[in-house]
Amino acid sequence: MTVETNDDVRRRVADWWATSVSRVEPGVIELRGRPIQELLGSASLTDAIWLMLHGTLPTPRQAELLDAALVGSVDHGPHAPSIAVARMSATCGIGLNNAIANGVNVMGDVHGGAGQQCVELYTEIRDLTAAGSGLDEATRVVVERWRARSKYLPGFGHRFHPRDPRRDPLVGLVERAVADGVVAGDFLAAGLAVEAAIAPVPMNIDGATAIIYGELGFPAPLARGLFVIARSVGILAHAWEETQGGRRIKGPIPPDIRPTYRP
Amino acid sequence: MTVETNDDVRRRVADWWATSVSRVEPGVIELRGRPIQELLGSASLTDAIWLMLHGTLPTPRQAELLDAALVGSVDHGPHAPSIAVARMSATCGIGLNNAIANGVNVMGDVHGGAGQQCVELYTEIRDLTAAGSGLDEATRVVVERWRARSKYLPGFGHRFHPRDPRRDPLVGLVERAVADGVVAGDFLAAGLAVEAAIAPVPMNIDGATAIIYGELGFPAPLARGLFVIARSVGILAHAWEETQGGRRIKGPIPPDIRPTYRP
Amino acid sequence: MTVETNDDVRRRVADWWATSVSRVEPGVIELRGRPIQELLGSASLTDAIWLMLHGTLPTPRQAELLDAALVGSVDHGPHAPSIAVARMSATCGIGLNNAIANGVNVMGDVHGGAGQQCVELYTEIRDLTAAGSGLDEATRVVVERWRARSKYLPGFGHRFHPRDPRRDPLVGLVERAVADGVVAGDFLAAGLAVEAAIAPVPMNIDGATAIIYGELGFPAPLARGLFVIARSVGILAHAWEETQGGRRIKGPIPPDIRPTYRP
Amino acid sequence: MTVETNDDVRRRVADWWATSVSRVEPGVIELRGRPIQELLGSASLTDAIWLMLHGTLPTPRQAELLDAALVGSVDHGPHAPSIAVARMSATCGIGLNNAIANGVNVMGDVHGGAGQQCVELYTEIRDLTAAGSGLDEATRVVVERWRARSKYLPGFGHRFHPRDPRRDPLVGLVERAVADGVVAGDFLAAGLAVEAAIAPVPMNIDGATAIIYGELGFPAPLARGLFVIARSVGILAHAWEETQGGRRIKGPIPPDIRPTYRP
Repeated sequence: MTVETNDDVRRRVADWWATSVSRVEPGVIELRGRPIQELLGSASLTDAIWLMLHGTLPTPRQAELLDAALVGSVDHGPHAPSIAVARMSATCGIGLNNAIANGVNVMGDVHGGAGQQCVELYTEIRDLTAAGSGLDEATRVVVERWRARSKYLPGFGHRFHPRDPRRDPLVGLVERAVADGVVAGDFLAAGLAVEAAIAPVPMNIDGATAIIYGELGFPAPLARGLFVIARSVGILAHAWEETQGGRRIKGPIPPDIRPTYRP
Repeated sequence: MTVETNDDVRRRVADWWATSVSRVEPGVIELRGRPIQELLGSASLTDAIWLMLHGTLPTPRQAELLDAALVGSVDHGPHAPSIAVARMSATCGIGLNNAIANGVNVMGDVHGGAGQQCVELYTEIRDLTAAGSGLDEATRVVVERWRARSKYLPGFGHRFHPRDPRRDPLVGLVERAVADGVVAGDFLAAGLAVEAAIAPVPMNIDGATAIIYGELGFPAPLARGLFVIARSVGILAHAWEETQGGRRIKGPIPPDIRPTYRP
Repeated sequence: MTVETNDDVRRRVADWWATSVSRVEPGVIELRGRPIQELLGSASLTDAIWLMLHGTLPTPRQAELLDAALVGSVDHGPHAPSIAVARMSATCGIGLNNAIANGVNVMGDVHGGAGQQCVELYTEIRDLTAAGSGLDEATRVVVERWRARSKYLPGFGHRFHPRDPRRDPLVGLVERAVADGVVAGDFLAAGLAVEAAIAPVPMNIDGATAIIYGELGFPAPLARGLFVIARSVGILAHAWEETQGGRRIKGPIPPDIRPTYRP
Repeated sequence: MTVETNDDVRRRVADWWATSVSRVEPGVIELRGRPIQELLGSASLTDAIWLMLHGTLPTPRQAELLDAALVGSVDHGPHAPSIAVARMSATCGIGLNNAIANGVNVMGDVHGGAGQQCVELYTEIRDLTAAGSGLDEATRVVVERWRARSKYLPGFGHRFHPRDPRRDPLVGLVERAVADGVVAGDFLAAGLAVEAAIAPVPMNIDGATAIIYGELGFPAPLARGLFVIARSVGILAHAWEETQGGRRIKGPIPPDIRPTYRP
């Protein structure tokens, strides 16, 4: 029988929290192996996002694409639950961080998951074409498969915008990036093929950002994670504005318009 | 007696959610009055943060300072409660957004508030000097005032780093920005004066980012808000790594090392 | 063309928040149609839980069963993520409610969903037997179906207790309730049949409370909801104890035992 | 120099999570020193709440008072942010526990803290009278002190109910409990004295439950903690109802009534 030594126990406890994301020791902070000193003054926040998720630094053109996807997701007005919930929370005597947390917490499968699902959808098309299917055929098969599961096709159609004003600028950026060899173009092809297949339902913000996240090599769940980072900016701005207004315990509608009771 | 019309009611309900942050109408998305199309491809995420909080776009040098403050706050290892809580949460069968929300939710007065408090501290020094006090005298008075309230002086000292590796690069960036007329330098002066007054306790990350946020005109509570945005990046990277490991219901220490019961 | 009147708009806005759970008007509070005055002094919290979810008041024997399921779920020690996360959160300068929220937030599919899934499993067995299958055959079919989806059978086995000390008292209570005609016994039969079929793996707390929730007519998702209510009590007690200890920014392990970095 | 042994390290790590709330070992679960088997079938949820916070079991009359305070706090309609936020959250594709967490998270100083503050207010009056002041004088002094800090006196007045329908039944229960020697009556005296001093502003639910929590020996912060437990029941019922309705991404007002933009 071998006996666990003092150091064995310490190592085992420490290893319970082992990570390859960052290293922090007295006087040392490294993100993915890079000393923080090297990043400060040279890396943008977007570079840091890329570094933390990919382990490398992006080229300027890669960062430009990621920036566009993020900026496009920052805000969608005070009625979006992610924003409205944060604004109401901010009037209840909790910290700004707590109000932001509430906004982030509602970005679930339905409110925050369409980008993730759309990356999965595009990936299925890309995989079928990589395996030899024609693009139109792969698109038809995959769209049918998704429609059998749900009446909502993630990334397409919008209950509010007849045509999402973010679609064209984002697709245009990817088209230029493909033309310049910055990204391969498989996800762009998949997205445009789906849009053509289900016309006249247009691509929405989730369909456009899913192209970018897919082209940039982010796994599907990170599409939701990146949406969270971006939307947190809008949540912060709205929650902050709400605290400046001084309202207390803000309900969803003016207090004199009461709910109807249905026994 | 005047009667409220149909339109009056609609307007009153709509106004309950009025905002100057963004405008969203069918086919239209504006952030602080700027059409989203103009921002996509030209604005970075950091530009968007500035726009949403200040209502304008930053100059490149302003954005560089903001980027440095944000990048410096992205991560501080898996033991920071904001990270550890998110990692444990990610093993419990909740969405990535829910795990991030938990990490953000712990960034309260003690774990996430030092930057905010330090902006307040510097602001008091700046206001006293603007009113005619000498910098040393103003610093002495303000530090004494804060120490009377708490044994922790926000922004200075670190329980872990003898010298925070982020201090020098961040202070150096601000010094160059002051030299070039990018920012006025009042908050830099206050921060260095405090550090000199309480030597050898050095400035930490909160003291350094508070200089930047103060110089860039952000009100103190937004120092916490900006820290939340930055740290969300680290939270996402860590939560994602944890989900990739496949562990379920991760406790804080290995399961065979059980808590001691004290009746 | 009909014109929407003032009152139409008001009604439409109010109806957006219509509910049959409660009615609140000036001087009036009703829960499921019962004036709050009638409940105060006569109804227990458990009665109120039943009322809010079922719309009626329970008999004493029904309330006794519900109480047992709830009391059995209150706490499972400081290592459970729902508890550990709340304790760490409580040291970060956020409100007690925020710390509780974090504990509740981690009770997802993996950490808080086994009871819900087990009610579903039992329901499938009950439905098959109601449709004419023998209990053993129905159990065999359903267990196989669930095992094909996951290696974890919800409600059975425990990574920590060889035999869960809550199983026997809870099952015994239900057996007496069935003998006395308080509940029908279908879910008890299903639970015992599963336990026999997969012996020697014993039923755990989720398997036992799922029997109770099923017998008492709660839909499966409410098994998770009721677990949340019960565990909130333990979360509160632990978070409160932690705040009394005065520790700040508590990490998961003692600070001198650092994580290992793996580049 | 002494060397830390294997067991020393293990103990030190385990002690990091030491607690007197519960003990969990293989086959053993104890709440405040009581085996869970003894509680199942005999203790109500309310008894368990008392046990977890006080370390003992309540008498039936004590439990009755606690039940009344809890039942009175269960729900206040769908417009309360704690409810509205949870209902909106429940439509976004997150778990029922996540929706409940969001409701709990908003019960901060303003929305959930009045009971806690009111226990503090009553405690100050009780302490002054215990130190020899007359009740009227003590009340006058303490009310003045609180009014100097804020225009809201916690526990009194209601923006919605001219007279809170929960006040009379709760105060009546405490009066009977005082008459029967169940509780001492100091907090009841303080509450009634404040109400008389500021007439005609009546006591609200927070003022009435603060009397009960104070009489039952709960420290002020637990008044908020207990409110959270109680309100979680209403939050659950409302969130559940909302999920049954099937609405997706519910905003605060009907979608066709849009916010006004003010540039």
